[in-house]
Amino acid sequence: MKNIGRRSFLKKTSLSAAAFATSPLIPSCKDSNIKVPISSGKYMGDFTATKLEKVRIAFIGVGHRGVGHLKYLVNIPGTEVVAISDLYENNVKQSLKTIHQLKDDNQHSNVKTYWGSENKWKTMLQEVKPDAVFISTNWKNHAPMAIESMKNGAHVFVEVPLATSIKDLWDIVDTSEIMQKHCMMMENVNYGRTELMYLNMCRNGIIGDFLHAEAAYIHELRWQMNEVDRGTGSWRTPQYATGKGNLYPTHGLGPVAQYMSLARTEDNFKSLVSYSTPALGRAIHARKTFSDDHKWNQLDYKNGDMNTSIIKTVMGRTIMVQWDETSPRPYSRLNLIQGTKGVLAGFPTRIAIEGGFDGLSADHHEWIEGNLLEKVYEKYDHPLYKRLNKKSEGSGHGGMDGIMRYRIIECLQKGLPLDQNVYEGAFWSAVTELSGHSVDQDGTPQQFPDFTRGNWKLTKPLGIIN
Amino acid sequence: MKNIGRRSFLKKTSLSAAAFATSPLIPSCKDSNIKVPISSGKYMGDFTATKLEKVRIAFIGVGHRGVGHLKYLVNIPGTEVVAISDLYENNVKQSLKTIHQLKDDNQHSNVKTYWGSENKWKTMLQEVKPDAVFISTNWKNHAPMAIESMKNGAHVFVEVPLATSIKDLWDIVDTSEIMQKHCMMMENVNYGRTELMYLNMCRNGIIGDFLHAEAAYIHELRWQMNEVDRGTGSWRTPQYATGKGNLYPTHGLGPVAQYMSLARTEDNFKSLVSYSTPALGRAIHARKTFSDDHKWNQLDYKNGDMNTSIIKTVMGRTIMVQWDETSPRPYSRLNLIQGTKGVLAGFPTRIAIEGGFDGLSADHHEWIEGNLLEKVYEKYDHPLYKRLNKKSEGSGHGGMDGIMRYRIIECLQKGLPLDQNVYEGAFWSAVTELSGHSVDQDGTPQQFPDFTRGNWKLTKPLGIIN
Repeated sequence: MKNIGRRSFLKKTSLSAAAFATSPLIPSCKDSNIKVPISSGKYMGDFTATKLEKVRIAFIGVGHRGVGHLKYLVNIPGTEVVAISDLYENNVKQSLKTIHQLKDDNQHSNVKTYWGSENKWKTMLQEVKPDAVFISTNWKNHAPMAIESMKNGAHVFVEVPLATSIKDLWDIVDTSEIMQKHCMMMENVNYGRTELMYLNMCRNGIIGDFLHAEAAYIHELRWQMNEVDRGTGSWRTPQYATGKGNLYPTHGLGPVAQYMSLARTEDNFKSLVSYSTPALGRAIHARKTFSDDHKWNQLDYKNGDMNTSIIKTVMGRTIMVQWDETSPRPYSRLNLIQGTKGVLAGFPTRIAIEGGFDGLSADHHEWIEGNLLEKVYEKYDHPLYKRLNKKSEGSGHGGMDGIMRYRIIECLQKGLPLDQNVYEGAFWSAVTELSGHSVDQDGTPQQFPDFTRGNWKLTKPLGIIN
Repeated sequence: MKNIGRRSFLKKTSLSAAAFATSPLIPSCKDSNIKVPISSGKYMGDFTATKLEKVRIAFIGVGHRGVGHLKYLVNIPGTEVVAISDLYENNVKQSLKTIHQLKDDNQHSNVKTYWGSENKWKTMLQEVKPDAVFISTNWKNHAPMAIESMKNGAHVFVEVPLATSIKDLWDIVDTSEIMQKHCMMMENVNYGRTELMYLNMCRNGIIGDFLHAEAAYIHELRWQMNEVDRGTGSWRTPQYATGKGNLYPTHGLGPVAQYMSLARTEDNFKSLVSYSTPALGRAIHARKTFSDDHKWNQLDYKNGDMNTSIIKTVMGRTIMVQWDETSPRPYSRLNLIQGTKGVLAGFPTRIAIEGGFDGLSADHHEWIEGNLLEKVYEKYDHPLYKRLNKKSEGSGHGGMDGIMRYRIIECLQKGLPLDQNVYEGAFWSAVTELSGHSVDQDGTPQQFPDFTRGNWKLTKPLGIIN
């Protein structure tokens, strides 16, 4: 803790949690659904931090995802891995080995390591005081780890979702504002080639005014149930019993939210309605795959296999958001945005523009898809993709992971605002709790908390970064 | 009127409209959202009428759609066109000419014709007393024309939607029950080749238990605004100013409702949530296409360009329903049904089945589509399609129109239940008013009225007709 003592900080945050107001300044309670804690910090919308010539990085969680971040980051000039923490010794040792295999120079010559007990990461933060912390752990740990990292003076980069409850999201926002530290949820999909191109096309007015978008995470992941004692499936499987609604909304939602500049001047999240299907697939799979006395056959899988929500924005636009990690079906994030002049869509990538497009289509009644898209990419590929594509080949998920990681370091080194601010991570992640409430209340609309406390109206839309 | 005098009938129906009950027998009001008028008639779920050796047919409305019905029906043995009514003389004269061009024998030798004033169709019903009336008119006339046709002793076949308000739908249901006459909304899409095959595959358990479906009418029809004084656009364009929600839900919804056997023993419609986008496209198109003083530039287009609703069923399944007749985008009805063992989808037609399917796919992570579908059609084409396909070539919309018309006459001649009962037409059409209310109330869930008064639990699922 730099400027505020820990005791005083804790007092302030519990005060924030107790006192609610519809505006950041005037405590009142017009609408009990929209609870806005009083801010004790300063708005982080277009926040820039002091330039870091060298970024001293620590990792919390170096399982499959964490080690992916590590592998790419160690090769960026001006980074230094200063610490690695994980519950498991072998993860830490393997990560160290990976660093030394990748780098034989002195860039990462003094990596402190932590493993063993649940709270070693706290010791690490206090001992090492890193500039930036990358968190890739069990979701329930995202919020406490992000908050503690910022409280220890670090910028923090958190895997999706940012947190699993709205209370935790508020605590993250408040801590970021108080500590004046970046907290970015690492939504890698916003750096996909097609997503970047669509952002570029939207900014260029190709589809006119926005009307409607569609986002999804449809990804059959029942195989994760094979991870019984360790790994993602070991803690995600019980979520299908205890969770409610859309448990993983951000991969589809992040990109379309940025096409629409939600929470950035032009529009914002307003409300959401949601229904889930019956919960059938997980129990069927458990019975088919595991013995009767296996722990996966003791769970009461209650969260509907597929969740469908509709978000309404302040400007009256709609976003249909779906989630299904259980049903047998090909992968999709939908990735659709409809405007008054045309539509951009995903899975498969296809576009249709009023009156035809660059000689590739006669009119908007036919899709431009397949090989025809080459010319569209040629013309509208995002400058960031063109600049970083080569650097990010093989970095994961078609290169999007590398572009994201490169940009994080670049922004820290140059003192630029990050491409995703703390509020965006909070809004995108809030769909989980809001959809759960709506499902519980037979589809009753839920209001989004305004994590920006009205400041979204002054926050710059994400530009087309060169 | 056969068994009941008109005066007595009117008394009964106004009584029905005034008295509401949650069950058909016990007048009470547990839930003010679910208003169920007391029935004065007999349930029509699996209704069969007396066989008609010859079906004496009258037409109300012989514009583009009505004449399509007429052309096909005149060629079916055992039909006789006995009357044609239309507001416009030239439509009637052209229809007569068409009949005589198609048929030079004596099958339709005494066609009475009516045109000129708004109410000539009533005179026709009284004078001709047809067995069956086909109604293809302005939507607001569907209900009064259907009701009056049944009151005059005819079975009635109504274009989609069956009616535009829930009150009118109840009046249609009540009249059908009192008069013991068929009232079928002619949802032609249920007779599409792919829709019939999907029904067959669903019945064969190919996708397991149902979880979720998707239905849409995404069809850019701004060109209809060129029909300024006469034709569909002349009365549909003002709907974009005065209407609310999903104005045309049935083409997408009808097929998936029958896959899921909604309102037929297994499940039923329960509630709906809905949001619309801003209304932009119609005003833009009017300004671009018509002079400033044109009547299309005097309208305040307020109904959102795209509407997205989610239906929840009694069994907890979900159906996402969309509507957009304005935005530039390729046509789609979505036509998707997700089950625990796989998914069938449309636009383009594609299927994915757990563990792969008949050697056409390795697993459910890849779609079977394009040429690969030929083998699926070969194996699962619906017997009805195979029997009637040749007879229906060129009948409209890829043959679906002809199969529907043939089946209507076949059922009337053989005294069989129709493939779509009056309740299905009512449920599918009710989405318009319910989505409108939900949109008006910021997404608040709306309960479906149970047009069957609980009898859906005893109504047979639609079989696989040979």
